[in-house]
Amino acid sequence: MARTSLSGFPEWLPEGRIVEMHVLDELRRVFELHGFAGIETRAVETLAQLEAKGETSKEIYVLDRLQALKAAASGARAPKDKGMGLHFDLTVPFARYVVENANELDFPFKRYQIQKVWRGERPQEGRFREFTQADIDVVGNGELPFHFEVDLPLVMAEALNNLPIPPVRVLVNNRKVVQGVCESLGVTDVEAALRGLDKIDKIGPEGVAQELAESGIDGDQASVLLQMAQIRTADSVEVRERLGALGVSGELLEQGLRELTALLDTANKRMPGAVVADLKIARGLDYYTGSVYESEIEGHEDLGSICSGGRYDSLAKDGKRTYPGVGLSIGVSRLVSRMISAPLARASRKVPTAVVVAVTNEERRERSEEIAAILRSRGISTDVAPSAAKFGKQIKFADKRGIPFVWFPGEDGADTVKDIRTGEQVDADAATWVVPEADAAPSVEKVMP
Amino acid sequence: MARTSLSGFPEWLPEGRIVEMHVLDELRRVFELHGFAGIETRAVETLAQLEAKGETSKEIYVLDRLQALKAAASGARAPKDKGMGLHFDLTVPFARYVVENANELDFPFKRYQIQKVWRGERPQEGRFREFTQADIDVVGNGELPFHFEVDLPLVMAEALNNLPIPPVRVLVNNRKVVQGVCESLGVTDVEAALRGLDKIDKIGPEGVAQELAESGIDGDQASVLLQMAQIRTADSVEVRERLGALGVSGELLEQGLRELTALLDTANKRMPGAVVADLKIARGLDYYTGSVYESEIEGHEDLGSICSGGRYDSLAKDGKRTYPGVGLSIGVSRLVSRMISAPLARASRKVPTAVVVAVTNEERRERSEEIAAILRSRGISTDVAPSAAKFGKQIKFADKRGIPFVWFPGEDGADTVKDIRTGEQVDADAATWVVPEADAAPSVEKVMP
Repeated sequence: MARTSLSGFPEWLPEGRIVEMHVLDELRRVFELHGFAGIETRAVETLAQLEAKGETSKEIYVLDRLQALKAAASGARAPKDKGMGLHFDLTVPFARYVVENANELDFPFKRYQIQKVWRGERPQEGRFREFTQADIDVVGNGELPFHFEVDLPLVMAEALNNLPIPPVRVLVNNRKVVQGVCESLGVTDVEAALRGLDKIDKIGPEGVAQELAESGIDGDQASVLLQMAQIRTADSVEVRERLGALGVSGELLEQGLRELTALLDTANKRMPGAVVADLKIARGLDYYTGSVYESEIEGHEDLGSICSGGRYDSLAKDGKRTYPGVGLSIGVSRLVSRMISAPLARASRKVPTAVVVAVTNEERRERSEEIAAILRSRGISTDVAPSAAKFGKQIKFADKRGIPFVWFPGEDGADTVKDIRTGEQVDADAATWVVPEADAAPSVEKVMP
Repeated sequence: MARTSLSGFPEWLPEGRIVEMHVLDELRRVFELHGFAGIETRAVETLAQLEAKGETSKEIYVLDRLQALKAAASGARAPKDKGMGLHFDLTVPFARYVVENANELDFPFKRYQIQKVWRGERPQEGRFREFTQADIDVVGNGELPFHFEVDLPLVMAEALNNLPIPPVRVLVNNRKVVQGVCESLGVTDVEAALRGLDKIDKIGPEGVAQELAESGIDGDQASVLLQMAQIRTADSVEVRERLGALGVSGELLEQGLRELTALLDTANKRMPGAVVADLKIARGLDYYTGSVYESEIEGHEDLGSICSGGRYDSLAKDGKRTYPGVGLSIGVSRLVSRMISAPLARASRKVPTAVVVAVTNEERRERSEEIAAILRSRGISTDVAPSAAKFGKQIKFADKRGIPFVWFPGEDGADTVKDIRTGEQVDADAATWVVPEADAAPSVEKVMP
């Protein structure tokens, strides 16, 4: 990580940024491979939009114009930008975008969106005030088939498992299962049950039991909820059996189970091992109505869920229409921060450059520039030495940055190129020399533990 | 442009975003081809940093946490994020980043940076409150050779002339020429001369003469300055001759002329026609000390300069060191806005998708998913029809989005693929079918006027 003078606002050194760009490029590649269209929304929303999701209002950064503040302080009247704040996620802005542009969009609309978001939280380990999210969502006009609840977590599993990190498991549950169990048990405060179960990893089963008790959920009910919450398996038959053994039943539960087991069965076929049912997953947010998703990185469970989401029957509404959706969001900065600090992955060099062309003396700089232009015209990232220093110093320029090749202009075009890692130096012609594929661009490789 | 409920905060529809991504991808490609390393800085700087550039203080968006504001309103004491604002350019943050990380960076440090910036201005035609800039800078530790003042505008000329827009000319001048002329004329208030000349396109020569007179620059002096400001040519000999005819001379002027003509001569060799000397270019900002740059798009001069910058002897300073630099910044949003609205360029489709696999009936969706998985594994962007509607409707799904191919799963793997533009339908195997190169990804082509 780069030195930074404001805590919670991470910045990377150039080699860290190469890791981050690799992640962003890979995510984009997989999202586009699956037909998601990229959009961006403005960083700013009205406070009315942002505060509609009340529980997050504590986290909002509000904007004001400095000039207006100064004018107000001096008692003068000045134009003010009332009620704007920075977005704290990409779901609220996407919902607004869908409603504003509904007549121009084609539904079901599959979009990905990779942008910074801001939360005015007290910074702590792994929590940032500014961070990048990468979201995919599908939103329908009026209706949205269930199969998207199967498709989207698999797109994320594919995207994440393409990165140079340990295996990522997507954990799934279904709100209808939890609600169905509550119904069957006679628990009326489903929200309280969800809130309690959501804390199981933090405060343990006993802590949850106590919280549930405080919400009027009795010991027998809590016991079943906690047994349900301990079901974790990729096997759909086992999910059914273990839930059945708890003596719960009902129509909503059955519908939820059908969806959850269909998701598991398809996932096991398409990407064995990538998806696991975990019935303690509740997701605090109250707008989820079907499948809910979290994820964990093998050996880095302490990081928490770096990719989460779910199905919502009403992402957005306008006068006439409701837009149901399903989506997941990756916390890119948290992931990249761990990749850099652990380190899980490392960039092979600090710059895009594959070749530095040496400069014999300043009068002949143009000759070096000509060579560079030929290499670049063939797609080879090339720099020219900043000064006609001794060749040893020019080689050091490349070495410090991890640039693999130094090109020496020769008399009458008799050039040579040196691989400074091996010391091998060969005759070369800029019009035909081929950069080894592995050296063409900086690579980002897994660091073996 | 997408509908937007906040003026000055542009958003694009998916097809517009494809145009923007094409621009961003091309800029990045050219910057990396020339060895620039990508970095990002946080969106937020301290007000102290931002206000150090006093003249722009009116444009700063200040941040506060909503919770803190509410607490303050109710009289309670609450933690407050004092003195933070959104950056209004990428130069101020880059200068801070260089100083903070000087020990980790390799100098001369060539970086590119593509990010949103914010200015709390009153929105007007072509002026945004939130927009994307794409900057390149080279910064040295203590010293920076002149040749970078030649290299950088040529990188920008290459990047801009690769875009699907009319030819872009980079206009250059040198502060030392203007200062040298002022010295020679006995004009002491060089800042006033620069400020006046900067307005020549807005208020005309007479308006400038009047402004100069108000700053104590007499009629004879103003006359020479205005004749200088009318010199515009790519021919370095002509620059010398016409300036010489004005009867001005001096050491600083000679140094500036040497630099300006060297820049022109090299540019004419490397990229004929891309760079033109324009001696009215002053750049308002007072930190430029050598070459200064603006640019114009042929036939779209009304847009103003979409790429500007210059040389500064002190981009940043810390206790012991000074960091000179040279850089240019592209106003990407202004450019993309014109590309979309004119339109100068158009995306060939609204989505990345090359193929939609039809679904015969919902029971056989998995068969369509298998085909899609094979196509994707071969790098072909593929979607699966959202529902098993009539084939006519599934073709319409592709047609509305501009997706060129629809794939029909057949019995026993006897699949066919249809080019819906020509109606041609052929037998195809997902493991071997080749998507025509022009259709693999959405293209962004110049619109012929």
